[in-house]
Amino acid sequence: MNEIKSPAAMTASLRHVGTRPVRPDGVPKVTGAARYGADYSPPGLLTGAVLRSPHPHARILAIDTARAAAHPGVFAVMTGADLPDFPFRFVGPERMQRNAWYDVRNILAREKVYYEGHAVAAVAAQDEATARAALKLIDVDYEVLPFVVTIDAAIAEDAPLLHEDAFTRNVAPKPAKPSNISRVYEDRMGDTEAGFAEADVIVEHSFSSDPVHQGYIEPHACVAEYNGGKAHLWVSSQGHFQMRDLTAAFTGMSSGDIRVTPAEIGGGFGGKTKVYLEPVAMILSRKSGRPVKMVMTRSEVFRATGPGSDSKVRVKLGARKDGSITAAEIELYYGAGAFPGSPFMNGCLCAFAHYAIPNQHVKGHDVVTNRAMTCAYRAPGSPQSNFAVESVVDMVARKLEMDPIEIRLKNAIRKGDPLIGGRVMTHEGFVTMLERLRAHPAYQRDPGPNRGRGVAAGFWHNAGGDSGATVFVNTDGTVSVATGSPDIGGSRASMAIMAADTFGVPYEQVHSDVHDTASVPFTYVTGGSRVTFATGKAVVSASEKVITQLKERAAKIWGVDPDAVDWVDGEARPSSSNVGEFEPLSLKSLAAQATATGGHFGASHAENMTGHAPGLSAMFCDVEVDPETGHTRVVTFVAAQDAGQAIHPSYVEGQIQGAVVQGIGWALNEGYVFGPDGVLQNAGWLDYRMPVASDLPMIEAVVVEVPNPNHPFGVKGVAEAGMVAAMGCVANAIRDASGRRMTSLPISPVKLLEAIETRTDPDL
Amino acid sequence: MNEIKSPAAMTASLRHVGTRPVRPDGVPKVTGAARYGADYSPPGLLTGAVLRSPHPHARILAIDTARAAAHPGVFAVMTGADLPDFPFRFVGPERMQRNAWYDVRNILAREKVYYEGHAVAAVAAQDEATARAALKLIDVDYEVLPFVVTIDAAIAEDAPLLHEDAFTRNVAPKPAKPSNISRVYEDRMGDTEAGFAEADVIVEHSFSSDPVHQGYIEPHACVAEYNGGKAHLWVSSQGHFQMRDLTAAFTGMSSGDIRVTPAEIGGGFGGKTKVYLEPVAMILSRKSGRPVKMVMTRSEVFRATGPGSDSKVRVKLGARKDGSITAAEIELYYGAGAFPGSPFMNGCLCAFAHYAIPNQHVKGHDVVTNRAMTCAYRAPGSPQSNFAVESVVDMVARKLEMDPIEIRLKNAIRKGDPLIGGRVMTHEGFVTMLERLRAHPAYQRDPGPNRGRGVAAGFWHNAGGDSGATVFVNTDGTVSVATGSPDIGGSRASMAIMAADTFGVPYEQVHSDVHDTASVPFTYVTGGSRVTFATGKAVVSASEKVITQLKERAAKIWGVDPDAVDWVDGEARPSSSNVGEFEPLSLKSLAAQATATGGHFGASHAENMTGHAPGLSAMFCDVEVDPETGHTRVVTFVAAQDAGQAIHPSYVEGQIQGAVVQGIGWALNEGYVFGPDGVLQNAGWLDYRMPVASDLPMIEAVVVEVPNPNHPFGVKGVAEAGMVAAMGCVANAIRDASGRRMTSLPISPVKLLEAIETRTDPDL
Repeated sequence: MNEIKSPAAMTASLRHVGTRPVRPDGVPKVTGAARYGADYSPPGLLTGAVLRSPHPHARILAIDTARAAAHPGVFAVMTGADLPDFPFRFVGPERMQRNAWYDVRNILAREKVYYEGHAVAAVAAQDEATARAALKLIDVDYEVLPFVVTIDAAIAEDAPLLHEDAFTRNVAPKPAKPSNISRVYEDRMGDTEAGFAEADVIVEHSFSSDPVHQGYIEPHACVAEYNGGKAHLWVSSQGHFQMRDLTAAFTGMSSGDIRVTPAEIGGGFGGKTKVYLEPVAMILSRKSGRPVKMVMTRSEVFRATGPGSDSKVRVKLGARKDGSITAAEIELYYGAGAFPGSPFMNGCLCAFAHYAIPNQHVKGHDVVTNRAMTCAYRAPGSPQSNFAVESVVDMVARKLEMDPIEIRLKNAIRKGDPLIGGRVMTHEGFVTMLERLRAHPAYQRDPGPNRGRGVAAGFWHNAGGDSGATVFVNTDGTVSVATGSPDIGGSRASMAIMAADTFGVPYEQVHSDVHDTASVPFTYVTGGSRVTFATGKAVVSASEKVITQLKERAAKIWGVDPDAVDWVDGEARPSSSNVGEFEPLSLKSLAAQATATGGHFGASHAENMTGHAPGLSAMFCDVEVDPETGHTRVVTFVAAQDAGQAIHPSYVEGQIQGAVVQGIGWALNEGYVFGPDGVLQNAGWLDYRMPVASDLPMIEAVVVEVPNPNHPFGVKGVAEAGMVAAMGCVANAIRDASGRRMTSLPISPVKLLEAIETRTDPDL
Repeated sequence: MNEIKSPAAMTASLRHVGTRPVRPDGVPKVTGAARYGADYSPPGLLTGAVLRSPHPHARILAIDTARAAAHPGVFAVMTGADLPDFPFRFVGPERMQRNAWYDVRNILAREKVYYEGHAVAAVAAQDEATARAALKLIDVDYEVLPFVVTIDAAIAEDAPLLHEDAFTRNVAPKPAKPSNISRVYEDRMGDTEAGFAEADVIVEHSFSSDPVHQGYIEPHACVAEYNGGKAHLWVSSQGHFQMRDLTAAFTGMSSGDIRVTPAEIGGGFGGKTKVYLEPVAMILSRKSGRPVKMVMTRSEVFRATGPGSDSKVRVKLGARKDGSITAAEIELYYGAGAFPGSPFMNGCLCAFAHYAIPNQHVKGHDVVTNRAMTCAYRAPGSPQSNFAVESVVDMVARKLEMDPIEIRLKNAIRKGDPLIGGRVMTHEGFVTMLERLRAHPAYQRDPGPNRGRGVAAGFWHNAGGDSGATVFVNTDGTVSVATGSPDIGGSRASMAIMAADTFGVPYEQVHSDVHDTASVPFTYVTGGSRVTFATGKAVVSASEKVITQLKERAAKIWGVDPDAVDWVDGEARPSSSNVGEFEPLSLKSLAAQATATGGHFGASHAENMTGHAPGLSAMFCDVEVDPETGHTRVVTFVAAQDAGQAIHPSYVEGQIQGAVVQGIGWALNEGYVFGPDGVLQNAGWLDYRMPVASDLPMIEAVVVEVPNPNHPFGVKGVAEAGMVAAMGCVANAIRDASGRRMTSLPISPVKLLEAIETRTDPDL
């Protein structure tokens, strides 16, 4: 484990941290040379395709694959029966314990289909046309069942049940009958009754949001090559070790038998942390004896992979006249889709975590519905509850006629403050963000006619976790940095920067790349804003081990004690007692004589990295609402986040900007639309409206740097918190511009126009 | 550096060393799933092709590529002018210092072509037909020069000179005029004059051999993808780090900018340690902006890649009546082909190294000729001189009427005996081999009519050198072993066996594979019989580091000192003082709780491995000579070698058998045949006659095991020494069967029949 240096002390010698060099994957990505999930075609490749349910809920009475199997050009056909079954309990590798009984049925249905688009069977054929033709020859006998698509329908008395024998867990006493509420989480801090009693104002309101898509450009794609008990998997994902372990679990293989090569990834945002196609492609490859490629269509991505949860949230806040919040209560229901697993607990734990509120009560419910199983989406679970909380904070500020930044400063969480769930706030930074925003010139300006300003802030846990890295010196004195973190946001560059500054060599002397599961030690997903923190720590630790080797080698060459050698600015130097006696030995020079002096230099490091800082964000925006159409245009957006120390500021800014853009989309336009038949109506980019460049102002990222003492370069994760507060920020600005408090996302022109035209009561 | 255990002490706990499990690459290789040099086809791939000289020696007056460049479908054209030039001196990375001026001209000719088949220009086009068509549009203006193809012609007075300004090096005083002898090596030990004076018998004779091909099945092939200053190279070779560093040197790139993925290799035997196509493909890719694949035809392999050297060797031995050799002298000339670099020094250093001869004189010459530049071939340089030495030893034994094993035992080298070149014999084992052969039942049998028996022995240095490995534990408790040694002879299996026994887990729990240059620390070529020794040591050292981590973790879990934990049989156990207090923690159990207890386990090790043992071999064979046709059939072959300890005995036996088979081919049939025009006449398998299964008896491998104390499992390299003595062994058997001493390889039926029919003098 690496010794943690004082970030302040380190800063003096930094050359590259904080600069903006070109990312190693830049040229291949802009020239088209980079290889993505569908860009691998080994000899003998077959194409796999999936038959999907036309019904949102039905019992499978029989599947007859005989005609498909006999179709010319078809090499393999499979159903859920080809996957191992699991008992109704948590299994799997430590870091990804999931309810395997559910998960394996999400990959391929067994007894029932739970949503329109649910995978039922798959074929591998000589080409896609043949595969699609063969799918039509698979006969499935369904008994169609009543279904529920919304949270309200699912929790209604006598709602049709997805899992007829599933009782709500984590509730005592055990419920009298099964329900679609799979789990409940409840926690308290302080005494909310007393807290509300102290309050001068109390605001309570309910909010809702639709399922939203992560909006990654690249559809899910993989190639599986099974051969003699071992297999190679080529996959675009947020974590190829996770893909390996999940694919192993759901095919009955050993993780060690699968070597997973990480393709480049065309976006994930949480949506590429699960397996959908991979176990299917693997079994089809095993059955056919040929490599099998599977690529989802866009429609399949929308219909059958996990969106972010829909939500139904009630928030109640009490505050004194001075703005200090005395009590907070939240009750939420998150839609999990077909199988339990919404991030409802995150919704509870993040809701108030950016505020120091002495009395809190949180209660959350995980609700199954007949739509695709939820997956992670950037700070999973936090945005939905935050939208409600930040809206209610805005209402309180309005009642108290307080500046919305002031009320947040008044209640801002500080290091050492308790959080619900027995946690404690471990870092500073949030107050600085709010102060930077308050002082921002754009905050001083009057928004102008038909315009309004919104403020919001948010919290996300962030993550540390397992990362590994191997670092070694090449024959020419360049340094290779090998990690297992798929590069989504420029992490090759960030790793190279940190290695360059650890070694004290030019950035160009470091080569940083992402490697397969058989090359580098276990590394958890690129998610949770963890890579620059955790994988960065692994890179620094491995680099420091190599520097120790280099110093020992210099000592050997000089015939001195290793303690008499310093490593400074990329070279071994005799320490003060020997200065002048020996010429410094550069990395290049030590590499050139490596063989002759004992061999080359390299080290690995693997560790479950602790000490990460949570991600907090604060932001304001100005919107213009067209009262004739209800259309909202975001005209200004300033978002602050604490990066600890920005390794590559462009990518920190990019994370903040990207998160805000996704939040704007969620606020204004995005949401799954289901027909009365339970079928998703907008399963494509034309109908699922994400913001494009012309919809957006330049998002100004304010990067605050309050170093994290638990990271050698002070890093705090920045990739998610920026989205958490964006919906509340936009909604509060709309309230300011239009006079209408909108409580249901997305705040589409239709909804807003209706509110403008029909609401007459004084709005909140 | 790992602590060296006593091999004897270790043997007790070995479970897998010495067993014969299935190799990890077995199934993919027999099912066709394994990917070789030509089996990679990235999107946008172009095909490269090379224009080759029709002349064995000519000055290039002009090259006009304009018509080829304008040809539709051609994306890039290049000549030698596109490669960087080098001063006339040694450059390049430490381990592969070469004469870059020569080497870069071998890749693509500049001022002159030096052999028929010499590469002159290259194109990259949309497909092979277009590329071949474009080659015909390149106009080269040659001034044809006189040439020399044989050693005799090259060293003749007033021979045409290949390098008109090159004086013989290592000779004092500097020669008066340039010559085709590029270098001379001479050394002495003791006093040969006195030694010969002591001798009762003296035999002196001359021998010769033709250039021979390594006979690998897979032709040279690679794919280069250059993109924005960085590149990926897919190549089948004996060492992808070497391919990287050489390609970097000859394209002016940095080694770190090239990531080389090792394809499987369809044989190398020394012939795949140089770059031919790789720098060309790289430049064509840079010029075209597209990936470029280049694959040699079989004819190109023969005409333009390096064969083993031809030779001309004179040996003189003096011995006492009791068989003890008192003096030895060797003078040899090795053909280097077009550029200096034959293994003539090895010919000198290995010639007598298996015998303890007090007085020695060796002198060798490196001779350039107008044929393809020599490359390594299994124990490069040793077989040619050994053939001469072992023939003369046989003559001495015949004169003294001594058993040919007895005379070799009489003179057998032993640990501590001096070797020429200031070396000392460091290991035992040779005497045991000879004794095992002497006791072999087949050695007691009378060979039978028209049959004869030959005995021979040989020496090869073997090698240690740089190897790296990364070892880590997967989430399911399996172990991944990542090395940089291309697997030619089953090394994945050998590495897995050594790791399994180091960890004390089942073989099946270890996954061993070969990784690219950006994944694992620098590793020198698979050659010099070094992999099981050197890379094996790296794997064991990395595994021991991981075991240390595992013990520390168990100590942490138990709350004891790490010293109070033993690692035995794949699990952490409390040491004697704590026995009974804690349940042992298996690898699987520690892996399952890795994240929760601090993270995963992994370590790298890189080192220039010292302590290798030289390879000695001893063998006998019976041949049957058909006096009507001169055809020789090998009917029995028993070859002994000291493996130190055989990690996977099947692969030790396979190395011995394969080496002997290649030696039989060299002895009886193989050799390059040049026409009077200097053009190779037998550039294909139909005309270059290698032995096939029906030509051969079962080769019996006698594996002697005298452990090498410098390796944790006692390993000595075994891949090369078996070939060294095979030609002498066969020639001696032919002498015994036919009464004819054959001194020129190959001993083809034509040559032998002529000797039988025309020689009347009492043969030696």
